[in-house]
Amino acid sequence: MPQPRFITLTTDFGTSDHYLGTMKGVVYNINSSVRVVDISHAVESYDVLDGALTIAQAYSYFPPKTIHVVVIDPGVGSARRPILARSEKYLFIAPDNGVLSLALEREQRVSVRHISSDDYFLQPVSQTFHGRDIFAAVAGWLSTGLEPAKFGHEISDYVRISIPAVKHAEKGRIEGVVLKVDKFGNLITNITAQDIPELFVAQAPPFKMAVGKHEITSMRTSYAQGAPGEVFGILGSMGFLEISANRGSAARSLEAGKGTKIVATGKW
Amino acid sequence: MPQPRFITLTTDFGTSDHYLGTMKGVVYNINSSVRVVDISHAVESYDVLDGALTIAQAYSYFPPKTIHVVVIDPGVGSARRPILARSEKYLFIAPDNGVLSLALEREQRVSVRHISSDDYFLQPVSQTFHGRDIFAAVAGWLSTGLEPAKFGHEISDYVRISIPAVKHAEKGRIEGVVLKVDKFGNLITNITAQDIPELFVAQAPPFKMAVGKHEITSMRTSYAQGAPGEVFGILGSMGFLEISANRGSAARSLEAGKGTKIVATGKW
Amino acid sequence: MPQPRFITLTTDFGTSDHYLGTMKGVVYNINSSVRVVDISHAVESYDVLDGALTIAQAYSYFPPKTIHVVVIDPGVGSARRPILARSEKYLFIAPDNGVLSLALEREQRVSVRHISSDDYFLQPVSQTFHGRDIFAAVAGWLSTGLEPAKFGHEISDYVRISIPAVKHAEKGRIEGVVLKVDKFGNLITNITAQDIPELFVAQAPPFKMAVGKHEITSMRTSYAQGAPGEVFGILGSMGFLEISANRGSAARSLEAGKGTKIVATGKW
Repeated sequence: MPQPRFITLTTDFGTSDHYLGTMKGVVYNINSSVRVVDISHAVESYDVLDGALTIAQAYSYFPPKTIHVVVIDPGVGSARRPILARSEKYLFIAPDNGVLSLALEREQRVSVRHISSDDYFLQPVSQTFHGRDIFAAVAGWLSTGLEPAKFGHEISDYVRISIPAVKHAEKGRIEGVVLKVDKFGNLITNITAQDIPELFVAQAPPFKMAVGKHEITSMRTSYAQGAPGEVFGILGSMGFLEISANRGSAARSLEAGKGTKIVATGKW
Repeated sequence: MPQPRFITLTTDFGTSDHYLGTMKGVVYNINSSVRVVDISHAVESYDVLDGALTIAQAYSYFPPKTIHVVVIDPGVGSARRPILARSEKYLFIAPDNGVLSLALEREQRVSVRHISSDDYFLQPVSQTFHGRDIFAAVAGWLSTGLEPAKFGHEISDYVRISIPAVKHAEKGRIEGVVLKVDKFGNLITNITAQDIPELFVAQAPPFKMAVGKHEITSMRTSYAQGAPGEVFGILGSMGFLEISANRGSAARSLEAGKGTKIVATGKW
Repeated sequence: MPQPRFITLTTDFGTSDHYLGTMKGVVYNINSSVRVVDISHAVESYDVLDGALTIAQAYSYFPPKTIHVVVIDPGVGSARRPILARSEKYLFIAPDNGVLSLALEREQRVSVRHISSDDYFLQPVSQTFHGRDIFAAVAGWLSTGLEPAKFGHEISDYVRISIPAVKHAEKGRIEGVVLKVDKFGNLITNITAQDIPELFVAQAPPFKMAVGKHEITSMRTSYAQGAPGEVFGILGSMGFLEISANRGSAARSLEAGKGTKIVATGKW
């Protein structure tokens, strides 16, 4: 008996229009036994890095052989290529704009193909909705067990992007940035435990972290540890330093958002 | 082995309350092997035309025999009838207010029944949540393979609605309207390639399209072709003329929205 | 052949981040044949009563043996216990903060366990995302058919909460409160037919219901019965008195919301 297969969808399409339902219809019309699971459709419009972060945080929790489809596609209708990536455990389908970079750099034995075999596209292919006509259709066919090689030739010059680098400006001073604000108002930064190991130990040395016009001086290991009104640093579930509050929105308290600069100074 | 069956849901219920989860519970309690797929729950409250457009754009991508349930139901609790429509390929369940019109007019061999057999309702039937007590319950039973005739008698006087007609005011002047704004700020109009074939060819003749206080003079074949800041016309994935911008919101640029008038003038 | 099993999810996580997709990945990686259904992810952040109301309204419509997972968890990372409740028909998994109270008080033969067996957790367990590391993982294992006793010992001192009580201030005067506003602007109150049976009969006696600065004097049995602009009382689909309008938002008309006081006076 064949194993059930999953397809995940991550897009910037929102959920108010018919777009997602239509993509699922295309998939199920090709393979009615596969199961489609939503990761997020609230990636910021056209924001490839935001999409890359979203899929990178979620993909590895899915069963082996899951096909992850990521459609953040500001270049739809242009010459940008659709790609199919395979790693030891997963398959990925996306436009070639770097949106898979953060996931692929964590995977082993990655090979990437240019999806060029239009036998597997929904015909006629529109110029405005490749999510339906290319990405959903290819995911449907791939989920039937077709080999990736059927879809196109291997390439090595696919687009790679990175998260903004942390700046080690001078000894004891590190500059980062807010990558994302989540639903609870947690500020997810680009600073990891590799950047400042001292911050993430049981007794962190005194430090100051400037976030816009505000300053943070404490680290906590859980949200519940925070005092009422306190804004603190915490190791988030994605491995990044987060700025958080206990039952409150750090984003609101600090008047901070995506792109806000973080300057951490201390004895490290 | 029986084919898996799908039920789709399109409503104006939003996703913040328990309503959708409850409807899915009702379906699965009747038929645990069917699979429910969301199309959209962000149809504007009580807006039958918006619901009709939404399901018309998505339904035909689903596997044959899919049951499409559409609950935009301003008359819930009144004498309006629940109906079950069957075409050559699909089944539809909705209140009789025209919300299926745009889908049914594209289908072959349509028959429509008044759902009157309350054996298939969840008892007692509330006066405020027919989505749960009638529409979900009937969809569940229908998905078990029951014949449509079990649910009620055929009728021919079901309600039909149309999208607002394009006005061919005088030679070379066509007036349309914005039907819908999507998540990206694309303005979806009621103008099709049948109305102005000249606009959708490789080299469109010079034209002007007034949208509120603004004017558009170019057509593009993909979003990516648009210059920065440019707002242009494009053939949308639904077959309607859309007013769009490359990586931007045409709705915001033109201060336009649902109901905004479009006046196209040119040599046609 | 084993019966298909369902897991429902009710959280305050919103749908914009990767959190829900990640939780579903964890479940499917443990049991790829179970099916996860969303109830709502728009419970107000950290609002245990709102979560309790949401699951109480939906859970009983699902097939027997469904596992209901409810993660409104302001105490994540603190000493609050994760619990597993079993009733005659359903299973429930949640933090021990009362969020299951309104559902469990309607169920028969309830037993509650402290989930302590960390063999079934995703290791290492983070301090910030127990939805992924504990609740989704335990739900996945439970859905494979493991006995609840495997997960921990039975307890009797689990947290219970109640909806705010209706005040029977003096004869003919009853004070309630708005518990929730739904997507349509219906005000769902804590007043039931048990509190004022006279209101819910065919010919209700004259009454006045003060809602903030406004007053209501009519009851309807369906939304469609309401006259244009009229705001009225109605027996809602959850068994509570709702304040509603026909094709309009009672919340907007009355400038009322969650927490608004209701004073009903009449001959009862």
